[in-house]
Amino acid sequence: PLDHSYSLTTGTTSTELLRKLNEQRDIIALMEVKMKEMKATIRQLRVSEAKLQEEVRDRDRERSRCRGLHREEEDLIRWK
Amino acid sequence: PLDHSYSLTTGTTSTELLRKLNEQRDIIALMEVKMKEMKATIRQLRVSEAKLQEEVRDRDRERSRCRGLHREEEDLIRWK
Repeated sequence: PLDHSYSLTTGTTSTELLRKLNEQRDIIALMEVKMKEMKATIRQLRVSEAKLQEEVRDRDRERSRCRGLHREEEDLIRWK
Repeated sequence: PLDHSYSLTTGTTSTELLRKLNEQRDIIALMEVKMKEMKATIRQLRVSEAKLQEEVRDRDRERSRCRGLHREEEDLIRWK
């Protein structure tokens, strides 16, 4: 937004501007490092999410199998 | 790193410095937006991870119950 822009009306010298410029450059460098870390975290969480979804699916399949066995056995017990 | 610092030796004017300063300011603003989005994504993925871990635990408990039933029924069938 324009209202936050730096302007020459405050009478800043080139040296001051340069100092600010280098400060900002350092902030950008730090933010880039932070963003890389966050990207790695997101990637890792997505891998973990996929694994967990696979585990839930595996257990759902096993549950269906076990329920099937359970029903067969209930029938066997009922008719024996 | 110092070798990437801006310096006055290149003969940049205050106007140029000011333009660069505002450019960097915009870059920082964009990066802040991006970082907020990434933070929200990470938070959401952590919630999703916790839910999925709970689902896996639920299914593990159910599996133990079903296996227990299965064994009891096998015994019943064997001895009936």
